[in-house]
Amino acid sequence: MTETSPFQTPAQKQTEREAKRQAVLRAAVRIFNERGFHATLLEDVAISLGISKPTIYHYLGNKEQVLLQCVIHGLEQLIQAADAARQEPGRGIDRLRSYLRRYAEINMDDFGRCVIRTGDEALSEEGRKQFRGLKGEIDHAMRTLIDDAIKDGSIAPCDSKLLAFTLAGALNWPARWFSPEGKQTREEVAQQMVDLLTVGFAPR
Amino acid sequence: MTETSPFQTPAQKQTEREAKRQAVLRAAVRIFNERGFHATLLEDVAISLGISKPTIYHYLGNKEQVLLQCVIHGLEQLIQAADAARQEPGRGIDRLRSYLRRYAEINMDDFGRCVIRTGDEALSEEGRKQFRGLKGEIDHAMRTLIDDAIKDGSIAPCDSKLLAFTLAGALNWPARWFSPEGKQTREEVAQQMVDLLTVGFAPR
Repeated sequence: MTETSPFQTPAQKQTEREAKRQAVLRAAVRIFNERGFHATLLEDVAISLGISKPTIYHYLGNKEQVLLQCVIHGLEQLIQAADAARQEPGRGIDRLRSYLRRYAEINMDDFGRCVIRTGDEALSEEGRKQFRGLKGEIDHAMRTLIDDAIKDGSIAPCDSKLLAFTLAGALNWPARWFSPEGKQTREEVAQQMVDLLTVGFAPR
Repeated sequence: MTETSPFQTPAQKQTEREAKRQAVLRAAVRIFNERGFHATLLEDVAISLGISKPTIYHYLGNKEQVLLQCVIHGLEQLIQAADAARQEPGRGIDRLRSYLRRYAEINMDDFGRCVIRTGDEALSEEGRKQFRGLKGEIDHAMRTLIDDAIKDGSIAPCDSKLLAFTLAGALNWPARWFSPEGKQTREEVAQQMVDLLTVGFAPR
């Protein structure tokens, strides 16, 4: 048995650094969601983790930089969900529905909620560009899934841009009203909303 | 012919006061929508009307009070639309669709946009209560229209609360993306979105 070194390897250091960064990000996103960007103090994020404010600066930067990393993380979750959906077998409508469910679930979770609740005006010019760029990718992913489903005849022909906005709007909104303390889980709410949007409210 | 008095009657004064109040409100709502609450300066609202900042205080109060009056005006437009829809003849689904169209149109207009874009955190405790109360009335109105339509069999049985949130979310979202400079009018976008939500995206 080799003796354990008290010194970390570069790989261990990197892993630990990333774990700390993630912990700060998760604490911050919860406080942003609860109070809004303007009312959030990094001091309170630090207190919630039992660390100092300079430690936050060290891992994530200033308040606007912390917010930007929160929304980027949320947007990346959405982009991954779209990539995963595109690779599923089956009809276009099945891939679309699968993405819509994940889209709704993410928007009811911490980072997705932060994406929805963050206005452009909270970010610097530079941050705003990055935020808009990633949002554009997500709009595009939704539209591609819709267009593919129109092509294979599994969804009704329509203006795919307007349908994408309609679906996104409906599934963004839970970021404002969903409560994990409510009767239904994220997954149940997502499933039911997607079903309502699929068949519409006029009897079939 | 009687000589015109240079002095206003109390009724004329009241009308003029209200016209001025409305003009300030409309100038303010546009700047709030463009820049967000925090970045808006009443000074700029005053400049856009060629008046002084104290004149704004005189008609509407401080910045938070101005914002509150903007969102109240938007919410009242929605409540009036619901009242009007409820009085229409025909089936429940027709009244619901009629309300949804107006709901979407209002949310693409100045005061409705301001309602959607205003977070609770911009308002004082007192203002927040009033804002939430009026929002509650609107949720309730949407739900009543849905329940009535389920009762007369003109819409498919479902969880009316979740359907109300789904429809509201879809039709709130244009407050974020609709541009009056685009190819379609408010009325066209509203009509098409309501049609998509009525029949769903799965082929019938």
